[in-house]
Amino acid sequence: MSQPVRKLKIAVSGLGRMGARHANHFLHRTPRADLVAAFTPAESEVAWAKENLEPWGVKIYTDYDQMLKHEGLEAVCVATVTTAHAEQTIRALEAGMHVLCEKPLSTDLQICQSVLDAAARYPKQKVMCGFSRRFDASYRSAYAQTVNGSIGRPTILRSQTCDKFDPSGFFVEYAKFSGGIFVDCNVHDIDLALWFFSAETKILPKVKSVVAFGVTALEPDLAKYGDVDNGVGVAEFYDGQIAYFYSSRMNPPGQHDVTEIIGTKGKLSVNANPTNSLLESHLSTGIHREIPQNYYERFEHAFVEEAREFTDAVLDNKEVPVDLTSSMEAVRIGVTLQESLRSGKKISFDRDGKRVDEDGQAKAKL
Amino acid sequence: MSQPVRKLKIAVSGLGRMGARHANHFLHRTPRADLVAAFTPAESEVAWAKENLEPWGVKIYTDYDQMLKHEGLEAVCVATVTTAHAEQTIRALEAGMHVLCEKPLSTDLQICQSVLDAAARYPKQKVMCGFSRRFDASYRSAYAQTVNGSIGRPTILRSQTCDKFDPSGFFVEYAKFSGGIFVDCNVHDIDLALWFFSAETKILPKVKSVVAFGVTALEPDLAKYGDVDNGVGVAEFYDGQIAYFYSSRMNPPGQHDVTEIIGTKGKLSVNANPTNSLLESHLSTGIHREIPQNYYERFEHAFVEEAREFTDAVLDNKEVPVDLTSSMEAVRIGVTLQESLRSGKKISFDRDGKRVDEDGQAKAKL
Amino acid sequence: MSQPVRKLKIAVSGLGRMGARHANHFLHRTPRADLVAAFTPAESEVAWAKENLEPWGVKIYTDYDQMLKHEGLEAVCVATVTTAHAEQTIRALEAGMHVLCEKPLSTDLQICQSVLDAAARYPKQKVMCGFSRRFDASYRSAYAQTVNGSIGRPTILRSQTCDKFDPSGFFVEYAKFSGGIFVDCNVHDIDLALWFFSAETKILPKVKSVVAFGVTALEPDLAKYGDVDNGVGVAEFYDGQIAYFYSSRMNPPGQHDVTEIIGTKGKLSVNANPTNSLLESHLSTGIHREIPQNYYERFEHAFVEEAREFTDAVLDNKEVPVDLTSSMEAVRIGVTLQESLRSGKKISFDRDGKRVDEDGQAKAKL
Amino acid sequence: MSQPVRKLKIAVSGLGRMGARHANHFLHRTPRADLVAAFTPAESEVAWAKENLEPWGVKIYTDYDQMLKHEGLEAVCVATVTTAHAEQTIRALEAGMHVLCEKPLSTDLQICQSVLDAAARYPKQKVMCGFSRRFDASYRSAYAQTVNGSIGRPTILRSQTCDKFDPSGFFVEYAKFSGGIFVDCNVHDIDLALWFFSAETKILPKVKSVVAFGVTALEPDLAKYGDVDNGVGVAEFYDGQIAYFYSSRMNPPGQHDVTEIIGTKGKLSVNANPTNSLLESHLSTGIHREIPQNYYERFEHAFVEEAREFTDAVLDNKEVPVDLTSSMEAVRIGVTLQESLRSGKKISFDRDGKRVDEDGQAKAKL
Repeated sequence: MSQPVRKLKIAVSGLGRMGARHANHFLHRTPRADLVAAFTPAESEVAWAKENLEPWGVKIYTDYDQMLKHEGLEAVCVATVTTAHAEQTIRALEAGMHVLCEKPLSTDLQICQSVLDAAARYPKQKVMCGFSRRFDASYRSAYAQTVNGSIGRPTILRSQTCDKFDPSGFFVEYAKFSGGIFVDCNVHDIDLALWFFSAETKILPKVKSVVAFGVTALEPDLAKYGDVDNGVGVAEFYDGQIAYFYSSRMNPPGQHDVTEIIGTKGKLSVNANPTNSLLESHLSTGIHREIPQNYYERFEHAFVEEAREFTDAVLDNKEVPVDLTSSMEAVRIGVTLQESLRSGKKISFDRDGKRVDEDGQAKAKL
Repeated sequence: MSQPVRKLKIAVSGLGRMGARHANHFLHRTPRADLVAAFTPAESEVAWAKENLEPWGVKIYTDYDQMLKHEGLEAVCVATVTTAHAEQTIRALEAGMHVLCEKPLSTDLQICQSVLDAAARYPKQKVMCGFSRRFDASYRSAYAQTVNGSIGRPTILRSQTCDKFDPSGFFVEYAKFSGGIFVDCNVHDIDLALWFFSAETKILPKVKSVVAFGVTALEPDLAKYGDVDNGVGVAEFYDGQIAYFYSSRMNPPGQHDVTEIIGTKGKLSVNANPTNSLLESHLSTGIHREIPQNYYERFEHAFVEEAREFTDAVLDNKEVPVDLTSSMEAVRIGVTLQESLRSGKKISFDRDGKRVDEDGQAKAKL
Repeated sequence: MSQPVRKLKIAVSGLGRMGARHANHFLHRTPRADLVAAFTPAESEVAWAKENLEPWGVKIYTDYDQMLKHEGLEAVCVATVTTAHAEQTIRALEAGMHVLCEKPLSTDLQICQSVLDAAARYPKQKVMCGFSRRFDASYRSAYAQTVNGSIGRPTILRSQTCDKFDPSGFFVEYAKFSGGIFVDCNVHDIDLALWFFSAETKILPKVKSVVAFGVTALEPDLAKYGDVDNGVGVAEFYDGQIAYFYSSRMNPPGQHDVTEIIGTKGKLSVNANPTNSLLESHLSTGIHREIPQNYYERFEHAFVEEAREFTDAVLDNKEVPVDLTSSMEAVRIGVTLQESLRSGKKISFDRDGKRVDEDGQAKAKL
Repeated sequence: MSQPVRKLKIAVSGLGRMGARHANHFLHRTPRADLVAAFTPAESEVAWAKENLEPWGVKIYTDYDQMLKHEGLEAVCVATVTTAHAEQTIRALEAGMHVLCEKPLSTDLQICQSVLDAAARYPKQKVMCGFSRRFDASYRSAYAQTVNGSIGRPTILRSQTCDKFDPSGFFVEYAKFSGGIFVDCNVHDIDLALWFFSAETKILPKVKSVVAFGVTALEPDLAKYGDVDNGVGVAEFYDGQIAYFYSSRMNPPGQHDVTEIIGTKGKLSVNANPTNSLLESHLSTGIHREIPQNYYERFEHAFVEEAREFTDAVLDNKEVPVDLTSSMEAVRIGVTLQESLRSGKKISFDRDGKRVDEDGQAKAKL
């Protein structure tokens, strides 16, 4: 008789849009995980959980610390509002948990750093920030080809995150605490730049300068939060690598995220030709197809894979597939782009990551 | 406290290529199902099951009838060799089980009929034949558009099933009992014709005549089994609908299954522009992409959806999504195409489904 | 001082839709040709010619025989109604002219044969039937790849000619003398089958049997001419090659002609993914593109190339790029498909091209 | 008898790569033009002209001023080296000619201005700078859709010019006088930004700031000319419009020029999915297609259309389709991007087009 499978006992914190999805992934689509608990302070989310999680044996908590004491609990997936990510991650670490934290750790770099410090204090516990695109099959193939040298040295990366326009005005309210479009949307693209530019060496590229531009084409009210609905940014790295980004909150047909990795011998293009299925309609008005309506429709399978690989990393005591330092660096570049957007100035760094003034003097890092 | 979820206790019979996949789908990807048992007479498959199923609490049987007696068992997924499909389905029915049977029920029409007869004797038990393409998201969208009238009346259907060339000669051996290329490959395409041509009326279209052609381009040995590696067939239906089919076992880049549903106002095209991801490589040799390597790579999610919907149909006592009469009709057309291939003759039917000789006389049905 | 360029003095007969285009091609887009004369019996076409050809020095005739006597005339492009193709070609030959004749020579095989006989009597004069697709850049690339062996032996050919739906009912009237959909539309596809199937050997493949099906989905009145608006046909050749065809007069977005040449090592796909430009529109209703609206929009450059290559063949005394025997064979297969459509019977041939009855007896050829 | 057609007597100056093409376009593909003369100082080009132009009645000159005196000459197409564009244009104007000048007028802004000044002195003579992309069918459709409002207000424009890698090192030598990658390659993309951003108002957008980045990935020797083989630049315009550019000289499969025009209601995408024909090859290594190998393969028909429309503008005394002020503005932005690349600084302008220092003080324009 074989040994029964050991499963990771995990809880999800936050049952909003993404939290509910994470809960479902761990509950139904991650064979080696057991979703045993979930936390949410929101009444409507509790109601949802009573109907959708409790019947499957998941215990619902309205107190985060109580949840951390759930018997046998080993790991937490933090999927609350961004402002709570860091604190919940640190408390979970202190309670002995492994943590999968939704991106970003924080939009504040000092808070990010406090998470890295906590993680360093608990080196046996896994901590991973959920940069979902790294788990997408198309990006994975592109990465494998990059690693095996088929495009030569990665030199230029173009990446965009374009959301379907939401006429409800939601994203104006959201801009208050999202950190801005470069931190909220392009942080994924920045993460991809860090990932692909280090594909050969496994050493994080060093940013040399960034600059950003933006407009408020449909939502002038974003201006009051120093934000825009269309952003263009460039990040130049030492040793000859450039990444340039575009983000938009007004793409009419749906979600259109594209990345091109351009090397000295070839280019890999992910989603230049978007579609949500293999169907095209030939009608009197021409040929038509549809694209994903939101980020989750595009990356659903990547999120599931992320849950599985985090679970495997914990159970098999392997390195988590997304490095925490890199996740913080992505935020740092995003925050600096947002600053450049607001000031209108190009911002430079020396090789040690210190800010350099126009007069050439270095400032303290962060 | 909510009521705990009730799950369907199911077993899989046969753990070959597809059986193992079905077992995984019910075990890990069908939340409302509990895979409690599995049967296989093959030693190598038992070994696989000990490693991959038993640790998850699945009981392994080497005797089919013993398995049917597994405590609390409610349903069986029959995924053994085609020749055993019908008998196992009938015995499962007799044991009070619901049955999901891999396609085809049989390559012999009288045996197919015996399954339908058995199903009729146990009207409270669900029986469904697994025509996986009906569960694919792209086909589903096409069907929804057809039902809502956006292409007018479905008139012409073109559909092909092209497998990657397997140089091992496997499919020559397989031809002995596969029923031939029109029964093995094109039966899916025929099923789609029946599905789409009845999208508006929900009445099965009546076949008027069929004709088939074929060549043995790479595997002349297929001829001894009356089979080919490339087949072209046409099925004409009463009241102005025509389906034409192509199947191949020599497609070099991989699996390429295409369907076009052509109506009086538009055409729906599924997979005319194949790919296995959103990645394209721009290299010095041009622009390249890859396609799925086999049927499962193309239709994995459809198989999972099939398992879920069968489970839902049983638990919620709903109609199964694929009708058994239609599944048998698909085999009947496939078998007749194969006969036409062998005889070189066009074969006609009257409106009651009886064969009509060249001299106009009807023969008995089947 | 270099020798001035010698140009071919050519006339166009017929200034209807295609005739006017041919006139423009020879006048403005065939550097080595001089359009010196044009014939049309239609008053409206004469008016068009006065405005569009005469100012460029082209002499307009309303008598075909007068035109043939135009001083220095060397060649004629016959682009009148199909019923006049053969007679005008023969009279031009008798007057010492080279002839480029629009397809088909005739829809009557005996008349076709009379053109071949005439051509044989004037072996120094070039005669070519204008199968325009052979001059299209995409088909040319496909042919070059086929000749160089990259797809192995061409085995299966799928080809379709689908016209945009014309609600005026024009094509019902046109069906009276078009020869039917297989002769009018699919003759191009049949020609491609003959071309690609002989790419390696340069020997015309021998047809073994044909069968055809059709429906009148939008224009029931076609039935009175034995025609349909959607046709499906198969032509099987000796030595293991099969071509299958689809034609439609009801494609809503425009012209969609596709050809796939399937060999033992690969497949070449021409226009599976149709478009009329490199533009796509991303709108709130999805992603959209347009396709050519008619045959000429799709094949304009092929027609120009045809004019140039015919001119070169005459001036440089080279073989014409489309063989007359093959052009007649394409009509023969089209006519036989149309007969099969009407009779509902599969029609077979022996290796010498003689019709074979169901009882195996050969009938006279033609 | 109709009036014979009046044709424009034109000469081409320079018979290098592009000059020879222009000569062919006016000689063979522009019905209303008569190529009567051509000038080149290069012996090898004279030899080519003797063989390819003289037999068609074109007089060959090795002295530009002599050519300007060719009897009846009305217009000149200037296609020599960039450094001679302006001077030859001005001399042709002084000789009473209309001028079509290859882009750019000059890489020096004062010299550009001298051409505009000359053009102003001869207001009855047409002068046009050949920005070929504006004549491409796909761009034309995109422009028409933009003008008719289907994408709302054009807000963001992304555009790239990527050349196939030329291992001969040619472009290093060429960098001496090309003006740099932003002037040589991206000037087309800049021109498109000016065109599309003024599609509604017909008023040139006012540039607010530019910034550029670049690397020498394959040709380090470019550095000595202050140039790069991959450039990324951004131009921000007053009133909420941003254009961002990429150029590369190392694209392995061929020429890949893309433009996206992003408006408040939709996006138009030109060539996101590149190909050089309608052919795809399905081989054991995957699915493959090819793209144009160079700029001319991609834009051949646009160049022909440019020749035709310039000819029409002269003969019919209409406005030329590309405005000279806009052509100079494109160079100004390109030159400033190149300066930003070299200095590493973002460069700003006030609304009057004057340079603004970091301290906010305006500098003189140009």
